[in-house]
Amino acid sequence: MRGWLFTKTGVAPKLIEKDDPKVVPGEVVIDVKAAGLCHSDVAALEDPGWMALIPAAPVIFGHECAGVISEVGEGVTEFKVGDRVGVCPMHPVTGEAIGYYRDGGYATKLLVPAVQCVHLPDEVSFVQGAAATDAGMTSYHAMFTKGKAKAGMKVGIIGIGGLGQFAAQMALIEGCEVYAVDKSPEARKLALEIGCKKVYETVPELKADAPELIVDYAGFGATTADALDAVAFKGTVVIVGMGVLQSTVSTYLMITKQLTLKGSNGGTPEDIEGVYDYFKTGKLKPQLAIISFEEVAEGLERLKKGEVKGRLVAVLD
Amino acid sequence: MRGWLFTKTGVAPKLIEKDDPKVVPGEVVIDVKAAGLCHSDVAALEDPGWMALIPAAPVIFGHECAGVISEVGEGVTEFKVGDRVGVCPMHPVTGEAIGYYRDGGYATKLLVPAVQCVHLPDEVSFVQGAAATDAGMTSYHAMFTKGKAKAGMKVGIIGIGGLGQFAAQMALIEGCEVYAVDKSPEARKLALEIGCKKVYETVPELKADAPELIVDYAGFGATTADALDAVAFKGTVVIVGMGVLQSTVSTYLMITKQLTLKGSNGGTPEDIEGVYDYFKTGKLKPQLAIISFEEVAEGLERLKKGEVKGRLVAVLD
Repeated sequence: MRGWLFTKTGVAPKLIEKDDPKVVPGEVVIDVKAAGLCHSDVAALEDPGWMALIPAAPVIFGHECAGVISEVGEGVTEFKVGDRVGVCPMHPVTGEAIGYYRDGGYATKLLVPAVQCVHLPDEVSFVQGAAATDAGMTSYHAMFTKGKAKAGMKVGIIGIGGLGQFAAQMALIEGCEVYAVDKSPEARKLALEIGCKKVYETVPELKADAPELIVDYAGFGATTADALDAVAFKGTVVIVGMGVLQSTVSTYLMITKQLTLKGSNGGTPEDIEGVYDYFKTGKLKPQLAIISFEEVAEGLERLKKGEVKGRLVAVLD
Repeated sequence: MRGWLFTKTGVAPKLIEKDDPKVVPGEVVIDVKAAGLCHSDVAALEDPGWMALIPAAPVIFGHECAGVISEVGEGVTEFKVGDRVGVCPMHPVTGEAIGYYRDGGYATKLLVPAVQCVHLPDEVSFVQGAAATDAGMTSYHAMFTKGKAKAGMKVGIIGIGGLGQFAAQMALIEGCEVYAVDKSPEARKLALEIGCKKVYETVPELKADAPELIVDYAGFGATTADALDAVAFKGTVVIVGMGVLQSTVSTYLMITKQLTLKGSNGGTPEDIEGVYDYFKTGKLKPQLAIISFEEVAEGLERLKKGEVKGRLVAVLD
């Protein structure tokens, strides 16, 4: 097999050859068909603080992929050879992620616990299936699992970047009334194009609409505090983005308006199934850009330089 | 009828005589048997800011009472003359409280919407029944309705004052493992006496026990931020106390630990029923001190001076 090896911060990942993984009980081997490129991989290459989060380094990088099962370990009953699957980045019990704690998805083959696999419906491509596992799952978990967004609900979304776009589209498919906030005129234009009811430059402007739920995909401290002011009585604010690491919130507002503030991180295989259901409607169309497997290092470089629109996904034959 | 009239901030309440209330559809008249004295009444007498919260002033004061129904309005089917009831301070739909928006409970007779009444079980005294409606309801709502405290759960309680004591006893009856935090050595001693597993002087000390739920009945900003650090992974912190009106919280912790922070304010008739159920066990024994109806003004004065231990309740024949 071949895979992109992460050695340490500051060293470009290298495409290497190594022995194919051998299947073990409870796990499966996947022939990877698509692998998404994530900003956290760029961060790991830039910021030495990330090394502590990658205990398996040197390790095959990548935590967002989909493919076809080629081998099934003893005791695995939910999956068989030939099944199309997406892979949840984190183990649902240990929380350990592929590409961090064990070899990951920028590879031709991946050995992974079966509990992290999710059946990929025929209507959903491998590229979509891969993008759904991290950006999709994380935005879904915040919006639906934590935020409990439902048809007819007024929902505010702060930050129409990769996650926010995914979330806005899913909330719109669900039948929510979506209000978007982004500093960028381009992002606001996109938000209107995909069907958001109103767009604003700043969070306080949301207050006139008083959404029942606001999901803060930016997380710049003031965005969270302002969201608590803007959200409806008995409303919920979910924080996902870590633009800054703290926020001064009004506990007076939280008490008198009986608000809930939830932190959301990553997600579960069930969340990925939820994203696949939205893809099956044919209406979920996040911006995706395709590169070849050989271009992963170059793609990470482009991501670092901010040259990429939407999610970059590497495809394999 | 007689009742204690609140005129405005700075003016002592005065015992007056007025015509008995006439029952109207959907409401009941209650012969008040017990009325609890609340710190917020002291605040209204001290702080002119409260005037805006008492639109009905001059008004009969008091929002924590129990008694016997003497008249039933048209359309009321849940209650009949002779029923023992407690009164929820706030209307469950409009949120308007007695003693603020209409005549209240420091009175021999009270006219109140039937939806605010709760059947008082025979095992529960009028004094207990009155104390349960505000201090009991508010502490119950935070601990059980918002905090979802359950048997076997590790629960932290910040502030073992009037509300915290009530909450600690109910959580212990429920079968929770209770950890209490209070600056006062006397309060910590009381917490141990009623059965708390451990007591601490400061919130960070709670971290070693990592409670799944922490309810902050103090609300001094740092107490809330420290509670988010001390609470377990995926835990919940509920804020009730408004010692100060804001808190600088770590959104990083909220996201990575997937925490929930909820504001809790007041409660509902269902919460009062919950408190009555705990009283029925015979194990719930909050500190209660009894005075006569004629001593309400004097009692509020003692409350203001901090001379009162537990809840002061005025009783009527």
